[in-house]
Parts: sequence; C-alpha cells; structure tokens
Amino acid sequence: MKKAIRIADLFRREQELLGRTARVRGWVRTRRDSKAGISFIELNDGSCLKNLQIIVDLNLPQLTETVQKVSTGSSMQVEGVVNASPGKGQSIELHASGIELYGGADPATYPLQKKRHSFEFLRQIAHLRPRTNTIGAVARVRNRLSYAIHQFFQDRGFYYVHTPIITSSDCEGAGEVFRVTTLKPENMVGNEAGEAAAGDFFGKPAYLTVSGQLQAEIYALALGNVYTFGPTFRAENSNTSRHLAEFWMVEPEMAFCDLEEDLEIAQALIQRLVEVVLTDCREDLDFFVRFIEPTLRDTLEKVVESPFETVSYTDALELLKKSRESFSFPVDWGSDLQAEHERYLTEKVFKKPVAVVHFPRSLKPFYMRVNDDEKTVAAMDILVPGIGEIVGGSQREERLDVLLEQMKLKGVSPDDYRWYVELREYGSVPHAGFGLGLERLLQFTTGLPNIREVIPFPRTPGHADF
Amino acid sequence: MKKAIRIADLFRREQELLGRTARVRGWVRTRRDSKAGISFIELNDGSCLKNLQIIVDLNLPQLTETVQKVSTGSSMQVEGVVNASPGKGQSIELHASGIELYGGADPATYPLQKKRHSFEFLRQIAHLRPRTNTIGAVARVRNRLSYAIHQFFQDRGFYYVHTPIITSSDCEGAGEVFRVTTLKPENMVGNEAGEAAAGDFFGKPAYLTVSGQLQAEIYALALGNVYTFGPTFRAENSNTSRHLAEFWMVEPEMAFCDLEEDLEIAQALIQRLVEVVLTDCREDLDFFVRFIEPTLRDTLEKVVESPFETVSYTDALELLKKSRESFSFPVDWGSDLQAEHERYLTEKVFKKPVAVVHFPRSLKPFYMRVNDDEKTVAAMDILVPGIGEIVGGSQREERLDVLLEQMKLKGVSPDDYRWYVELREYGSVPHAGFGLGLERLLQFTTGLPNIREVIPFPRTPGHADF
Repeated sequence: MKKAIRIADLFRREQELLGRTARVRGWVRTRRDSKAGISFIELNDGSCLKNLQIIVDLNLPQLTETVQKVSTGSSMQVEGVVNASPGKGQSIELHASGIELYGGADPATYPLQKKRHSFEFLRQIAHLRPRTNTIGAVARVRNRLSYAIHQFFQDRGFYYVHTPIITSSDCEGAGEVFRVTTLKPENMVGNEAGEAAAGDFFGKPAYLTVSGQLQAEIYALALGNVYTFGPTFRAENSNTSRHLAEFWMVEPEMAFCDLEEDLEIAQALIQRLVEVVLTDCREDLDFFVRFIEPTLRDTLEKVVESPFETVSYTDALELLKKSRESFSFPVDWGSDLQAEHERYLTEKVFKKPVAVVHFPRSLKPFYMRVNDDEKTVAAMDILVPGIGEIVGGSQREERLDVLLEQMKLKGVSPDDYRWYVELREYGSVPHAGFGLGLERLLQFTTGLPNIREVIPFPRTPGHADF
Repeated sequence: MKKAIRIADLFRREQELLGRTARVRGWVRTRRDSKAGISFIELNDGSCLKNLQIIVDLNLPQLTETVQKVSTGSSMQVEGVVNASPGKGQSIELHASGIELYGGADPATYPLQKKRHSFEFLRQIAHLRPRTNTIGAVARVRNRLSYAIHQFFQDRGFYYVHTPIITSSDCEGAGEVFRVTTLKPENMVGNEAGEAAAGDFFGKPAYLTVSGQLQAEIYALALGNVYTFGPTFRAENSNTSRHLAEFWMVEPEMAFCDLEEDLEIAQALIQRLVEVVLTDCREDLDFFVRFIEPTLRDTLEKVVESPFETVSYTDALELLKKSRESFSFPVDWGSDLQAEHERYLTEKVFKKPVAVVHFPRSLKPFYMRVNDDEKTVAAMDILVPGIGEIVGGSQREERLDVLLEQMKLKGVSPDDYRWYVELREYGSVPHAGFGLGLERLLQFTTGLPNIREVIPFPRTPGHADF
C-alpha cells in the first residue's frame, strides 16, 4: 500500500507539513454535515488520543458519494492538504481531495456510538474497546511503561531472563495455582492427582507460575543482575478491583545485593517509570486527569520529587496504633498489614510512597533472609497512595543452614527444592530482588479504579473470553 | 554493600583504570598455585564471557588463609590494583590486596569442574549451567536479541500489546493445546470435558495460547501497528531438536498493510537482529564460531548484506522438482513444504534467506487472505540456512464474506469467533502480520543444534523441572 503518515506524527510535524499534502488512514469517530455543504469527519488512528479533523467539500461530487457512506466506526483513507484550523481545540485539519472507504460500520448495530459507555459494558466488547479514548490511552501508557521497564534495566546492565511459565516448582506461599494438563477428564477417573499425572504431558503435575523469582535467582547467581518480565498467575477466587488471575510482573534479582540496595533500585525504578508517564504520555495523562482522577498529576509529580520514606514494620504498627482510625483488621505485632493499614500509612501518615521493611518472620515465605533478631526477615513492601502495595521484595536467605531451618519451620520439603538448596551449597552470595506488578502500576499512573481496564483481556473467575 | 565494578565494565574501561584500585565480585572458574608463591584465580561474574585473572601473593599471610579455601565454583569479592597483564590472552589482571570469600563449593560434589560437559548433562543441572561459557553466552545473546526486538518496533512507532496466555479461543490449526484447570481429578469423574468445565475456574474450558495473533489483530484494528512478544505453547508430543512445549514468539500485526509490506518489515527485523548480534555480541559470537559452528559469522554476515529472495510456492515446487535430490516427502502442488524442502531451497538453490509466498489455500488456516486466483492465499514463510522456517506470516482476510466462506470451508464455527468476525463487520481494513520464534532465531545466531540449549528452562514431553 502507498505510504501514509500516522496522525501522531502529523501533529508532531505540523509546522513543517502545513500547506503540504498528506495521506492518513484510520477509523471515524464522528461525522457531521453542515448546512453550508461541508462534512466534518473526526478521524482517529490510535497513534494518539487526538482526532484529526477532516474537511470534505460536499460540492465535490467525486467525494460526496463516498462520504455519504461514512459513519462512526468506518475505516477510511484520506488524502488532502494540511491547513491551519480555525476551529477550537485543534491546530490543523486536513482538506480532503481524495477519500477511500475501507469498511463500513452499520449505525444500527455498531456498539461504540458517540456517548459514554460504562466500563462494565466495554469489557464485554473487549475486541472493540481499544477504539475508545480511555482504553486506547491505557494501551499507549501500558506500551510506554513496558518499554521503559526494559530501558531502565538494560541501561543498568541487567540481563533479561525468560523464566518458565509452566513449572513443577511453585513459589511457596503465593497462593492457589492453575494446573496445566493434556489429560482428558476420563483418563483422570478414579486417580489421585499424582497418579493421573504419570500419564500427563510432563510426567508429573505441572502448574502455571506464580512468580519467576526462584528461577531468576538461578540466573542472578550466574550473571549478576537480571530481571524477568512476563505473565504470572493466581487461581484465587477473588472478584475485586485489584486482582486478576493473569497479570504481568517485572522481577529484578541482583547478586551481591542487600535490602538497602534492593530498596534503592525499586525506588529508582518507580520514580523513573512515573517520570516517563509525566513526560512521554502527556496527552493521555491529561485525559485521565480530566475524566478519571483530577488529582492524578499532582500525585505522580510528588512521587518523582522526593525520596520515599522508610519505616520498619514494628514502627509502622506503632503509628497505626497511635492513630485514632478504627480499622477492621487487628493491629498487633505479627498480623499482616491489610489494605486499610497500607493506605493509611501512605496516604495519611506519610502522604507519599513508603517502604515498610523487616516484617515478622512468621508472615513471610521461607526464602527471605532472617535478620539478626531472628524474629524478622529482610523484607520490604513499597506502598503508594491510592493503591497500597505496589512492590514486594526481600533480601534472600543465602546461608544454607538458615535456609534449611526456615524450610523446616515453614513445612517446605528440601527435596522438592533440591536445586534451590544447591544454590546455597555452591558459590552462594548475598542477593536480593523484588516484584512490581505492571497492572498495579498502571492503576497508579492512570487513576483507573478497576484493574480490569488496564490489561487488554482481563482473566477473572468466570471470564476467559477472547 | 560497597560498590563493585562489573568485569565487563572493567575490561571496557581498562585504559582508564590501569594502576587504580578496583573491587570485583564473582565466581571462581579455576585456581592454580605456582611454585613461586603466586595463586592465579580466574574470576567470572557473568557480565561477559571473559574471566578476570586475579593475582594473589601467597606471601601475604592475611590473604593466604582465605585463598586456601577457594575452589572452582566459590564466590568471592576481590579488591586490588588493575595492572597490565604479561600473560597471553588477557590485557589486564587484578593484583589482590583484599579477598572475601562468600560461599565455597565442595570440589568433591560441585558438578562444574573444569572440563567439557555434554549438553545433555548440563540440562539436568539447569540451575548451574548458566555458569558455563556456552549457556552464559546464550543468555547474553538472548537478552540482547529480546531487547533489540523491542527497540526495533518502538523505534517504528509500534505499540507493545500483552495478548492473553489463558484463552478460550485457540488460534485454529496451530496444533495441540494445554488445558488450564483448577478442577481436582475427582471432580471430573464421569464428566465430559464440557460439563466438568462448568465448575472450573473460568466456567468453560480454557487453554494456553498457541499464538497471540488473533488478539493482536484486535489492537492493530484500533491502534495501527502493534506487536506481541511473549510465551506461547504447543502440547505436541515431539521430541526433536527444533520443538519446545513452551517458547517465545514475537508477533507484529499491522493495520493498512499488505503482504509485500509485511515481508519488508520481516526482512528488516531479521536483518537488524542479526546485525545486533554481529556488532553487540562479538565476544560471545567469537566463542560460538570457535566451539560450536565455524561458519556462523559468515552465514550471519551474508544475511545482513543483501535482500532476501522471494519465490512463490508454485515456483518453489518447480525448483524442487527440477532438482536431482531424492526427498522423503512428495513434491506435489498442494503438499506442504517439509524441512528437507525448506533447507534445500535456502541452502542449495538460493544460498541465502528466501521468502516463499502464496501457498495453496488448502494448506493454510482460515484467517489468511484469499488471492484473486482463489487457489492460493497471501501467506509467507521465511526460510534461513541451517534452520528452515524462521518466520510465518500472512495478509489477513479482511472481507467479511470471504472470511465466512473460509470458516465454512475449514469447519471453523463463526459463533466461536464472533468477535473476530465482528472486526470485519465494523471498520475492517487490510492488515497483515507474522510470527518470529525467538528460539529458532537464537539457534540461527548461536549455531547451537538443539533448541533446549537456547531457552533457560526447556519444557518438552516429560520435562518441566525447575
């Protein structure tokens, strides 16, 4: 096909292109015909939020016939001259000299007419919703953040590692898992899971990963600094605005690294990613501020401006106790922080992102490094306003004897994690890492209240369509 | 922990750092004590292939005691002065003034002693094999290629889209799938798959994706140019050196794009990726040339130097028929090209990458665009020497009536793909895309004969360890 220019590029180069001809392609958002014989078409190609206004002179018979067929949702190509626009809200417009209609969209059935649709409704038409302003903007921010994650780590010499999706190990304590099988139900009849598995594809039960951390440790203990970035899974039956059965997580893992440096890297990453949205996604961010969350830009700017707070779990509990809030969950040393506690700390006490460190040993998985007090582990949770936990990480237990003691305490069999134990037998080193959920970060940077809007095809209990 | 320098950076900045002190950390490849009272330690930190030679004066009592405990596989920190090395094969060495041992590695049991190990053996210790030269080099090339894929598409304004891993649609005709379930075997008893699924997590049968293409089309038809890059799955019971049950694939999808442009982009991508290996992975490439495949650099250079050939399926068949080769599989119009045919075309006939286009309609899935002859579809396979098919793609059928006819012909129910059909009802446009398998590309750029060596944790029938 002949070359066309993306609408985003047309706006970016508008000074240079004024008075010149251009070819664009996209989907029609609206068409309005004036009594003066002009048709105004708002064309969007998804490259940016903004529509390009197309001006069609209905006195030109070769265009009129085609224009009559153009309705919301139609796809078309337009050739024309780039002119300064007298209209409000746009700098340029395209005066059509040629129009080609690719595909129509019957106004009687096309679901995306020009009106506000509920997010619930849009989820049912996930094949069309990226053509809306909100979901289109989310897609562009998601793209920019995903690439910025790679840029951040690559610029710092981290190696990207693809940890497995299907695994017979599971990252202990991370919740319910999905089983992966090629067995037909009838071949499972009368069998325990273990027996049935002997005839299964992998010869034993296999699951979808809940975290790439344990395998990332393998590569950190060979290459130094690594990161994984891929899908992870939880089979929890929770229908909340914060949970998905399938979501993306970035998990860096650093050899020769302690909790302090782990926290520094997590802060630098979050600040950099927020900065990228502020600088590279201005137009989409403006949209979210205007239609989703008016305080969004202020919140994001504050994240970039100053270092995060750090508070120990023990001190955080004292702050919660001293507050006059009536929490639903108990505030006792040894209880986990709940969303209400997390949000109180970051929104009311510190009014900025805060890292809670050194949690009770009893609350955390076997692989976290035991502190000298033997009561706490070198864990960290980073909390941000409006969301709560966005990062969870820890220094890992690198001492063989302490790891084995931890496994015994937590009921984890060293036989099942023989390879993990061997990483402490052969050339063990202090190391640390964390996980950052991409969708939580997207909720934070777009202000969208429901996580189902920030992933293209949300998987939740009862929903695996498309 | 105190700052240390990566060994790769030390070599890169060696002129600047000569005579200065440096701190490095890594794993010991070998230690050898000379009669003259010097211990030579080869230290590797995974940042590059090359080891740093550490010189320890055994007359310094504060070092001697520690050095005695150092063996192959140990992890350590060394502080010392960067000196020019008189030795062969290295420009600099580090004269130790301080040594800290992190973790030992019992020489009686540590499996990676200084000798050649078979790849089969190394697969059994996939938690230690990234500490070998070959698998470490693969990991670095895999990282560089993965990032280069993102750079290529981001530089061209493509948006990265995360298509779902769990799906109730399957990309028709791509082979056997894995089922994803939370049902216990006992709850499946006496049920057909469909009935059992009513009580399953998603309320219907769900599978691991075999391709993100169909969902990528959704986003291309809203945002223009997009790509997916993620894991895909095949439950085929094939134990070959070219197949994995879990592998990574990049799949660009372009709106307003025909087969010709699709092919241009695929060629540009492959050439760019090969160029990146030639320029940015020199040291690792040298290693592969020396120990794996002597002709590797020549092959790669040829790929970059000249445009790919293009040949129609029909003409390719004529070339095969004219050859005097005795193929195992038939060469008849309507038969699929087998590996032996593919390799003959790219290695013997064209001696360079070749795109075979316009395959018989009967051989290809329902979504490929039917050509005007009604006998062929606008498909392309790109073949490279030594590997065979590395890219498969097509222009997609954008005409509603032809798509429905194709579905009928192929026995695909429009009800199961209602959303896919609707993309042709509302604002349909010409579009095209392709898939490039990351592991095939890695086999091509490293020369490694078995695909199990180019992915960190290979999943094949009977194998899902780690």
